Amino acid sequence: MSLVIVGTVAFDSIYTPRGKAERVVGGAATYASWAASYFTKRIQLVSIVGEDFPRSEIELLESNGVDTEGLEIVEGKKSFFWAGKYLDNMNSRETLVTELNVLEDFDPKLPKAYQDADYVLLGNLTPEIQLSILEQMPTRPKLVAMDTMNFWMDVARPALLKVIEKVDVLTINDEEARQLSGVYSLAKAARIILAMGPKYLIIKKGEHGALLFGGDSVFFAPALPLTEVHDPTGAGDSFAGGFMGYMAMTGESDMENMKRAVIYGSVMASFCVEEFSIQRLKTLNETEISKRLKRFVDIVHFKPVQ
Amino acid sequence: MSLVIVGTVAFDSIYTPRGKAERVVGGAATYASWAASYFTKRIQLVSIVGEDFPRSEIELLESNGVDTEGLEIVEGKKSFFWAGKYLDNMNSRETLVTELNVLEDFDPKLPKAYQDADYVLLGNLTPEIQLSILEQMPTRPKLVAMDTMNFWMDVARPALLKVIEKVDVLTINDEEARQLSGVYSLAKAARIILAMGPKYLIIKKGEHGALLFGGDSVFFAPALPLTEVHDPTGAGDSFAGGFMGYMAMTGESDMENMKRAVIYGSVMASFCVEEFSIQRLKTLNETEISKRLKRFVDIVHFKPVQ
Repeated sequence: MSLVIVGTVAFDSIYTPRGKAERVVGGAATYASWAASYFTKRIQLVSIVGEDFPRSEIELLESNGVDTEGLEIVEGKKSFFWAGKYLDNMNSRETLVTELNVLEDFDPKLPKAYQDADYVLLGNLTPEIQLSILEQMPTRPKLVAMDTMNFWMDVARPALLKVIEKVDVLTINDEEARQLSGVYSLAKAARIILAMGPKYLIIKKGEHGALLFGGDSVFFAPALPLTEVHDPTGAGDSFAGGFMGYMAMTGESDMENMKRAVIYGSVMASFCVEEFSIQRLKTLNETEISKRLKRFVDIVHFKPVQ
Repeated sequence: MSLVIVGTVAFDSIYTPRGKAERVVGGAATYASWAASYFTKRIQLVSIVGEDFPRSEIELLESNGVDTEGLEIVEGKKSFFWAGKYLDNMNSRETLVTELNVLEDFDPKLPKAYQDADYVLLGNLTPEIQLSILEQMPTRPKLVAMDTMNFWMDVARPALLKVIEKVDVLTINDEEARQLSGVYSLAKAARIILAMGPKYLIIKKGEHGALLFGGDSVFFAPALPLTEVHDPTGAGDSFAGGFMGYMAMTGESDMENMKRAVIYGSVMASFCVEEFSIQRLKTLNETEISKRLKRFVDIVHFKPVQ
């Protein structure tokens, strides 16, 4: 079943205590598409780039099952550019440059072939764009997941709540969950956010794992303690891509399958951070993914009785 | 098999966003003893109090399997007193008052009956006291666990390293693991710390769970997302008490049993924070503990294959 991924395709310059990578390929939809491509080859990308974006990168996505009819290329303009610097602990980062460029005029038209997709991942964009995608789909997709960030909670809360009401899965981080709900306890925050509309809430806690809330159930996906984190950029997007790729591959939207999807999302995020940009996501294979999955199974496994 | 618990028995005044509790019973050894008492009734307490400490609290410990021959009561002096205030997020706290009182002269003499104990929990105290306890035991105990804090890393690192070298299990929090090892990655920190002597390292991450490292293995114990945290004081000590109580009850010191012990420690910590002081730890029963254990099992459980 096809999976529409909406989000940025961009250039990043990244500075971390482990090194730097300048004007490398980035963007939420790029990370998510690469991560999802290990689970489904029916990905439909909705994004916008300038004429500076390398044609070879687009072709590589295409050869990995990503349809790019929905990727607008604007002649005479430049791609979205972000530069950021990670501090020592890799958990906090500072934005150095944001050049919206083509993103300023982004008003995506969903190609006809995308309009009946069963799975939709709305990457972090203005709530208006996220909503307009859903409004261009005559039939309600089987599963819609959305990502967002604190910025939209600050400047566009009413519009944001309108989108949140319409989606099945909301993925945000712990601070965002606290901001959105107005309470500190994540268990309480989840109850409040689920009452806003989504059936499932995923709270991403970075190096502390992720929580999945659905109905009265809660599931915790650990993060692996990694010896080397080279570049945390795109970890959340790789998580979302792995998650939705697995959901689209398997076709079941119940809590049990969602748990597996959260683990596969965590697996893809754990690979993402091992190298700069999308380097690690480009070179994966099934054996590596299965081995990593086993580490996620093993790290929490114990027999409750001796 | 008997379990020696060395640590403070004290009064606390605690201020949290949920309320306050003034001059209530506290101290690391108090929390640890109560938590351990649900697993073994052969606990031997080593501590010191002043004449102000209520006899009834000591009797209550005794009736729950805690031998208090090693609890020194100093006439004419006051018990150790600590007052602290938790900030909104309950994760950071501010010390308002520290009155050492009897703790200034604490130089514990291990009663004869304690000297051949198989299990020893060295609560957070000066490294000199921790070492002196071990030196008073003619036979090496089967399992020695120790807690410590950043303060001793700052002011008494050489003495601290001498104790760490001699113990089997070190329990510290994530910031302390980073400070002790000098590296940020917890996976790397664990390797460095295990090379200092201990066979096992437990890194407590509060609301983010706990990591157990042993040899090349790593185990992650989740924390439950709780709706109400009333008072985080003593959570780490309850963890240590539950952990060592379970180890003493079961008698096996391999990694598999250690994993269960870490989960039981987490169970006891999750109860501890539900009420002020040791209130919740006083009223537990086996059914509640089993039910809570099941939540720890369930929250990470998933079937890797559909």
